[in-house]
Amino acid sequence: MKEILPRQIESLMNILGTIPGIGAKTAERISFHIITSKDNMVQKLIDVLYDIKENIKICSECGMISDTDPCHICLSPERNREILCVVEKPTDVITIEKTGEYNGLYHVLWGVISPLEGIGPSDINISKLIERIRNLGIKEVFFALDPDSEGETTMAFIASKLRDIEGLNITTIARGIPLGGNIEYSDMYTLSRAIRFRTRLNDNL
Amino acid sequence: MKEILPRQIESLMNILGTIPGIGAKTAERISFHIITSKDNMVQKLIDVLYDIKENIKICSECGMISDTDPCHICLSPERNREILCVVEKPTDVITIEKTGEYNGLYHVLWGVISPLEGIGPSDINISKLIERIRNLGIKEVFFALDPDSEGETTMAFIASKLRDIEGLNITTIARGIPLGGNIEYSDMYTLSRAIRFRTRLNDNL
Repeated sequence: MKEILPRQIESLMNILGTIPGIGAKTAERISFHIITSKDNMVQKLIDVLYDIKENIKICSECGMISDTDPCHICLSPERNREILCVVEKPTDVITIEKTGEYNGLYHVLWGVISPLEGIGPSDINISKLIERIRNLGIKEVFFALDPDSEGETTMAFIASKLRDIEGLNITTIARGIPLGGNIEYSDMYTLSRAIRFRTRLNDNL
Repeated sequence: MKEILPRQIESLMNILGTIPGIGAKTAERISFHIITSKDNMVQKLIDVLYDIKENIKICSECGMISDTDPCHICLSPERNREILCVVEKPTDVITIEKTGEYNGLYHVLWGVISPLEGIGPSDINISKLIERIRNLGIKEVFFALDPDSEGETTMAFIASKLRDIEGLNITTIARGIPLGGNIEYSDMYTLSRAIRFRTRLNDNL
C-alpha cells in the first residue's frame, strides 16, 4: 500500500478524515475525485482556499465569519440594533437568516458551556457579549441555542450576568411541539413545556 | 442570505458540491468546518493541494496516479512483468493491492466504454494498453473490471483487438457467489455463471 499511494494523497485523505462525519472511505473517495477530476479542481480549490485565508475574518463585534470587519450585519443600517440574537455557531446565523423572521443583530458564542467536554464560560465568546449588551443599548437578548442541557446551562449562565440591567428583555426561541408533530408521541418534557408555555392565540392572530 | 454569506464560502461550497455523493447540505457543513476549524485547516489544505498540483502525475506507462513517472509499480523490479491487470480507475489499483494477491503490472483505463454516456473506445486509455501488451512481452492480460454491461463490453472490445497475439492468456476476475453469500437469494445471472464456471477444487487445494 504505502509504496503505491503517493504521500500527498494520503495527506489529503488524512486532513479530510478529521472532518466530523467523513470516514476513511469517504475521505479516500473525495481525495481521488479531487485529484482525478478533469476540470482542474485542485487549482480551483487552491484559489478559493487562498481567497478564504486572505479575506475571511471573524467580525470583532459579533463573532460571525465575514469578508468585512465589522460584518455586513453589524454594519447594516437596516437592522434593528436594539435586539441581539445569541447563537452557538456561524451556521446558526445563516439558518436563522434563511427564515426571514429576524432582523436584529447577532452574537456568535463559538460553542456552549459543556462541563463534560471541559468547556467553561471563559472558553466561549461571552465577555464580549456582555460588553455589547451593556454598551449598545440592547433592549432584548434573544437566545437561539439548542434546547439541550448545554444550551440551557449556557443561557442560564449568561442570563445571570444580565440580571442587573434594567428593562432588558431576555427571550428564548419557542420550544414546543414541532409543526407536523404529534402530541401522542411527543416526549413528556417537550409536551410539559408546550403546555406550560402555551401561546395566547389572541396575541398572534 | 447572499449579503451575509461571503462569496468565498459560497465558492468553496459550490466546488465541493460537484463531488458525487456530496449534497448542498454536506458541502455547507464541510466548508464551515474547514473555515472555522481551529487547527489551521485552510493552510494545511492549501499546502497539500499545492503539493499535489506540483508533484502528482499520471504514469505515462500504466495511467496510474503517482509522484514519479513511471510510477513505483512500473519501475519495481519485484513485480511480475509478464502479467498486466486492466482496471477502470486509479482507486481499483489500490483496492487490488490491498488484497496482496496480485504482483503483476497494471493498466488504468480511466473509464469504461459506455454508449449511454457517450464514452467510446477512443475516450479511454485503450491504444496505449494494446501497445504495451504488444511491446512488453505480456503473457497474460487480466481484466478486473466491474461485471456489469459496460465492463463486459469494454473487456470484449479490448479482447477482440488482442486476438492475433499468439500465446496470450486473457483472463478475468472470477464472478460468482460472494463469500458469505446465499445461493437461494442469488440472482439467476450470477448463479448461472457460478455453475457454468465452477471451480475444480483439485486445482486449488
